[in-house]
Amino acid sequence: MIDRLSIEVIGHINSCFTEKFGTPRQSGLVPSAAARLRLCDPFNRREMVRGLEEFSHLWIHFVFHQAMEDGWKSTVRPPRLGGSRRIGVWATRSPHRPNFMGLSVVKLEGIEFDHGVELLLTGVDLLDGTPVLDIKPYLPSSDRIEDASAGWAAPELEALEVAYRPEAADFCSAYETKTGVPLRQLISEVLRQDPRPPSQREKKEMYGMRLYDINVRWQASGASCLVRSCEKIG
Amino acid sequence: MIDRLSIEVIGHINSCFTEKFGTPRQSGLVPSAAARLRLCDPFNRREMVRGLEEFSHLWIHFVFHQAMEDGWKSTVRPPRLGGSRRIGVWATRSPHRPNFMGLSVVKLEGIEFDHGVELLLTGVDLLDGTPVLDIKPYLPSSDRIEDASAGWAAPELEALEVAYRPEAADFCSAYETKTGVPLRQLISEVLRQDPRPPSQREKKEMYGMRLYDINVRWQASGASCLVRSCEKIG
Repeated sequence: MIDRLSIEVIGHINSCFTEKFGTPRQSGLVPSAAARLRLCDPFNRREMVRGLEEFSHLWIHFVFHQAMEDGWKSTVRPPRLGGSRRIGVWATRSPHRPNFMGLSVVKLEGIEFDHGVELLLTGVDLLDGTPVLDIKPYLPSSDRIEDASAGWAAPELEALEVAYRPEAADFCSAYETKTGVPLRQLISEVLRQDPRPPSQREKKEMYGMRLYDINVRWQASGASCLVRSCEKIG
Repeated sequence: MIDRLSIEVIGHINSCFTEKFGTPRQSGLVPSAAARLRLCDPFNRREMVRGLEEFSHLWIHFVFHQAMEDGWKSTVRPPRLGGSRRIGVWATRSPHRPNFMGLSVVKLEGIEFDHGVELLLTGVDLLDGTPVLDIKPYLPSSDRIEDASAGWAAPELEALEVAYRPEAADFCSAYETKTGVPLRQLISEVLRQDPRPPSQREKKEMYGMRLYDINVRWQASGASCLVRSCEKIG
């Protein structure tokens, strides 16, 4: 009986989420979240993705590389439950799991062949630098379960309302003009999900959050938040 | 940058599919297909599955252990396309993929604690002895993609009609009475999917297929097949 395997990393993610804070808790929550999956040699031969462009969505198997240092836990407190209830790790999608393996369904926007094989993805919840272990097409006939019940994960958090100071809004417009990145849309989608840890949701604090090479400063109060400034890092 | 990982097997599958021939090509196609996932120490602590019983469906990450010997392929010919078109391995769910990692969504029927932790599953496409790497709850809010397009996997095969010789039908009834296993239902669901390799679909041959400890002999002709006999092995 096999009890251990050596797995090769087949590629790495370049993503807008350059730090953990602000990274969505599931895929699909932030449709504007873009990433590029660069396949490594020898897994980047052109014929290996033949036919992939016919699919709208893909599964990405990846490694929660930033969770490995802390090790895995038997139970965790999911943020969606306000951090109060302890759930077995097998009943969650927590990064702090044995083998640290993650699974996300993402939208495939395109495939580029200028530098090996690169997949353009949106709707990601993947940190920049994430190692990837496998890619699979999303098959609606088997993967879309109409009558699945969601267990403890059923209650949705209420979305935050997002407002911008004029200077922050201007920065976003200029950035979008220059780079093509819909920064304001991205910030709004991320903040709507309320990235704060549950323990801090009652507080009225200032937060810094990094997206691409931008530091976004924002403040939350009740069910709304205000983007105060955006600043290029470095 | 990480380029290789050591992954631990967290459990093994005991399933009705005791050989590769007849094992469904995706999960959910054979609702009566039952399996037991036995978690290994130290991944079988009772608290690790707390809350899992609230979910109807789970993702099982597993290893295509029988494909490892043959190695991976850059392109494969999916049976659903009649075996004629070559598709890149990343655009398929083929076992012959780098890292040999599989992903199936299965129904959770129950959890037993008599011998460590065991999950009772149905709708599986998992071979007996399959090593398991991870378990995750199916989250409808992120995993059920309403507008996903299926690419080359869209055309469904036509279901075979299944008939039984009286002796075979009698065997199934007796087996069900004795063991509680709905053998006839299981055989019918498996054969409806036409387990034959595409190259053999024109032929009128006799096949043997093993389910649990039973050898099932059947014959196909056009769009129907006949179960000729069932026999206990050994």
